[in-house]
Amino acid sequence: MAYMPNADKLPDVQSLEPDFPRPIDRVGVRGLRFPLALRDRANGIQNCLACVDLGVDLPASLKGTHMSRLVETLEAWKEELGYESMRHLLENLQLRLVASRSWAKFSFPYLMRKAAPAGGSSANIAYDCSVTGELDGNRQTFLLEINVPVMTVCPCSKAISREGAHSQRALIKMKIRIARFVWLEEFIELAEKSASSSLYTLLKREDEKYVTEMAFSRPFFVEDVARRASEFLERHTAVLWHEVEVESMESIHNHNAFAFIASK
Amino acid sequence: MAYMPNADKLPDVQSLEPDFPRPIDRVGVRGLRFPLALRDRANGIQNCLACVDLGVDLPASLKGTHMSRLVETLEAWKEELGYESMRHLLENLQLRLVASRSWAKFSFPYLMRKAAPAGGSSANIAYDCSVTGELDGNRQTFLLEINVPVMTVCPCSKAISREGAHSQRALIKMKIRIARFVWLEEFIELAEKSASSSLYTLLKREDEKYVTEMAFSRPFFVEDVARRASEFLERHTAVLWHEVEVESMESIHNHNAFAFIASK
Amino acid sequence: MAYMPNADKLPDVQSLEPDFPRPIDRVGVRGLRFPLALRDRANGIQNCLACVDLGVDLPASLKGTHMSRLVETLEAWKEELGYESMRHLLENLQLRLVASRSWAKFSFPYLMRKAAPAGGSSANIAYDCSVTGELDGNRQTFLLEINVPVMTVCPCSKAISREGAHSQRALIKMKIRIARFVWLEEFIELAEKSASSSLYTLLKREDEKYVTEMAFSRPFFVEDVARRASEFLERHTAVLWHEVEVESMESIHNHNAFAFIASK
Amino acid sequence: MAYMPNADKLPDVQSLEPDFPRPIDRVGVRGLRFPLALRDRANGIQNCLACVDLGVDLPASLKGTHMSRLVETLEAWKEELGYESMRHLLENLQLRLVASRSWAKFSFPYLMRKAAPAGGSSANIAYDCSVTGELDGNRQTFLLEINVPVMTVCPCSKAISREGAHSQRALIKMKIRIARFVWLEEFIELAEKSASSSLYTLLKREDEKYVTEMAFSRPFFVEDVARRASEFLERHTAVLWHEVEVESMESIHNHNAFAFIASK
Repeated sequence: MAYMPNADKLPDVQSLEPDFPRPIDRVGVRGLRFPLALRDRANGIQNCLACVDLGVDLPASLKGTHMSRLVETLEAWKEELGYESMRHLLENLQLRLVASRSWAKFSFPYLMRKAAPAGGSSANIAYDCSVTGELDGNRQTFLLEINVPVMTVCPCSKAISREGAHSQRALIKMKIRIARFVWLEEFIELAEKSASSSLYTLLKREDEKYVTEMAFSRPFFVEDVARRASEFLERHTAVLWHEVEVESMESIHNHNAFAFIASK
Repeated sequence: MAYMPNADKLPDVQSLEPDFPRPIDRVGVRGLRFPLALRDRANGIQNCLACVDLGVDLPASLKGTHMSRLVETLEAWKEELGYESMRHLLENLQLRLVASRSWAKFSFPYLMRKAAPAGGSSANIAYDCSVTGELDGNRQTFLLEINVPVMTVCPCSKAISREGAHSQRALIKMKIRIARFVWLEEFIELAEKSASSSLYTLLKREDEKYVTEMAFSRPFFVEDVARRASEFLERHTAVLWHEVEVESMESIHNHNAFAFIASK
Repeated sequence: MAYMPNADKLPDVQSLEPDFPRPIDRVGVRGLRFPLALRDRANGIQNCLACVDLGVDLPASLKGTHMSRLVETLEAWKEELGYESMRHLLENLQLRLVASRSWAKFSFPYLMRKAAPAGGSSANIAYDCSVTGELDGNRQTFLLEINVPVMTVCPCSKAISREGAHSQRALIKMKIRIARFVWLEEFIELAEKSASSSLYTLLKREDEKYVTEMAFSRPFFVEDVARRASEFLERHTAVLWHEVEVESMESIHNHNAFAFIASK
Repeated sequence: MAYMPNADKLPDVQSLEPDFPRPIDRVGVRGLRFPLALRDRANGIQNCLACVDLGVDLPASLKGTHMSRLVETLEAWKEELGYESMRHLLENLQLRLVASRSWAKFSFPYLMRKAAPAGGSSANIAYDCSVTGELDGNRQTFLLEINVPVMTVCPCSKAISREGAHSQRALIKMKIRIARFVWLEEFIELAEKSASSSLYTLLKREDEKYVTEMAFSRPFFVEDVARRASEFLERHTAVLWHEVEVESMESIHNHNAFAFIASK
């Protein structure tokens, strides 16, 4: 590259004083794409292309943060995603950006093989997840978000109708703080057993029969599904705190139904 | 306004010659918001806030179009939406932009009151629609796009299961060219009768019973719904051409099913 | 309607006891479409088609809420949107659903006419807003969310480059709790003066010159814009609490930059 | 699995005669997630998680297609994505579904390392791409879609303003039919050199200076960018046909500008 300005002589506008000296809670970047290794119960490691958001606080005395350092810190971080590796990233963000708080969010589709319930043929299904870490001084928080699509069969529709009941795809959105490592698969299964049925990518005729009959034997409102998932999370020994929201794409309406529970 | 440059002296960069003298098929703006009056079967007129895209062709000899004139032409157009008013807009775009082809697309939610099938209480439901006009020289085309959410009950699931059948929300997407004015409501109703059931915003218990039983007595695949809607459009005397796509948010899968038919 | 079941005899499944008697924080519907009258500084009233979410709490002893009553309560509410009318809606939701907490969110595009800064021609521009009310027992909260797209010119890029500076569209997202009525227009203008420039729908050449020069004379980072908007909200006598997030679609990156400030 | 119905005895509803015997142009599934190997110029192979749509035609005489066979055919296909492997998949879809036409679309983010133009530090950037194949009898078509975000600096704004010019992120959307293998990277670079500047993930101060000055020395309208990309595609010896659309998120407007060219 022939052209090469002298970077040392370029003014550092970010380090000027701001016109309004207010501290900024979080400043950073959104939507970086980053290849990430995830722990996978079935295969050891799963590689994905995550979407990454990074941020730090900024004191009242500085006009701007140095955003390229956020990207550099991520680039220098070569670990598989976990509680400890997240801490390394967050500490490096604090150091490199001279910040008291650092924050990182990794969003990714998590792929699993799933066997059909009767015939057993398997295929891929993906769950949208994210892992967020924050380091405030020395205190780290770690948040899992896991979105599990499921099927619900309406108990009211079933009870009042001569035949059938409306069913639909619903999404169980869980936010979870944990005290120790837990497989994502464990929470996904917990969500799936909260609903009328789990979803599948490959169902042959005997499987479709199985899923339909299973789902109709377990009719649940969004309220039921939210309560079941919340109950199961409450009982999980590794879960410190959780929120559950279930949103169902009602097949008889053009609007959705939802139910939300936060753990106390 | 104190500051007022002499616009006549500002260079007209758009009228320069381009580096690569290729004709441009369509150039314009996307996402203008514009209050629009629609013809409404029940109420005479329905006011909406449309999203508008406008475009014209550009000859090989000109570097750029004058995009502000697209906005000005729309602003000067004060008519309710229809075939004739669309022509006025398109002609004005041709004149104002010195173009041979002009194009306009209005997208809007179309609101209807809908009565529950048993109890009769009514509430609002909206359908995403668009109207696109193009004027190529003197030849005008006019395209309706109407998206109608419906319910489908799976005939296979019903036939093979001891009880129940999976149902889900599906979307019927119709593109229609017409020879004369037709109410949007007519096409919406045509789509709804193509499916297992229409959707409603307000259903009391007796209505939910009615809708469930009605839907389960009319189980349809996406293929069935696409064929029915296509057949009904084919039979409609005002329809010159149509395409139908039905996409269903399968309640047993995390992927969608679709069926597409283009009229010959 | 010939078919009419006896609704009194249909079982009320919602009133059964749930399997897991956990209280539900919020249960309801999302995505209702509803024609709404808004107070408009220039025109008195502005009619829009809002998207409405409604919810209530549900005690541990009841299996399900009666969702159709949420829709009925909204249908029976015929007022223009405001603090008092929101209270009526929330009280009616509490009464009709036998709930201790009720919640309603109205989301809508808010349309304004905006005059070009030099030539003065005017056109429409829309801002995505929402108003959320919650009634917990007798205690009401009221939250405005206003999203204002603006232009930012990068001060660093300007300071270090021989010519130019990258600019981009950015979005100022404000959440505001207020003590008395304030026009939406007031907060929109406050946000716009926080940025390098306001956006316009119709700009003639002299206006484009004006906007470019104005914006380049006021280069701001996302941090600057967040601080300015937060400062202006802090100074506003009607504002009890606010959060501001600015997100810019960086024109030199394929990711966004953001800055977030919460009032203390 | 204890429960195992006798699949042979379950009715095959799909093979019934439809009520309206109309041929269906395309029926299938949308939104399957599938791990896919892509050819990568820098690394040989790039693994991604694609989103897959599959479809076939359906004769007038059959009520439904067998959608699970679409999934099974994909699951049985274990090849890296290319012209020949696409043909195998399409042939297998025709055979397995007893169809005359088969169709497959793979959508994925394509990741590249990109070095900053002055300092040379590198980071990841992703481009949304898709590859679509169709087999009609024995005739195969193959379509690339590549979306390349870039920067545009407005030549008009630059010419008329005392200082600066508005710039913004824009997206170059290319649809391309090719006669032989071409690296995706080649088309991405071709798009990037059509614009005022390429985008980067990691830019230090000297790079930001470089990019700003480079972009301001090459101001282009969306019309210019569309013409340049179209011209470069026209000259490319492997390109049989192309369409280019450029859409820019104008930093002075809240609407977008676009220009579209189809090759003759």
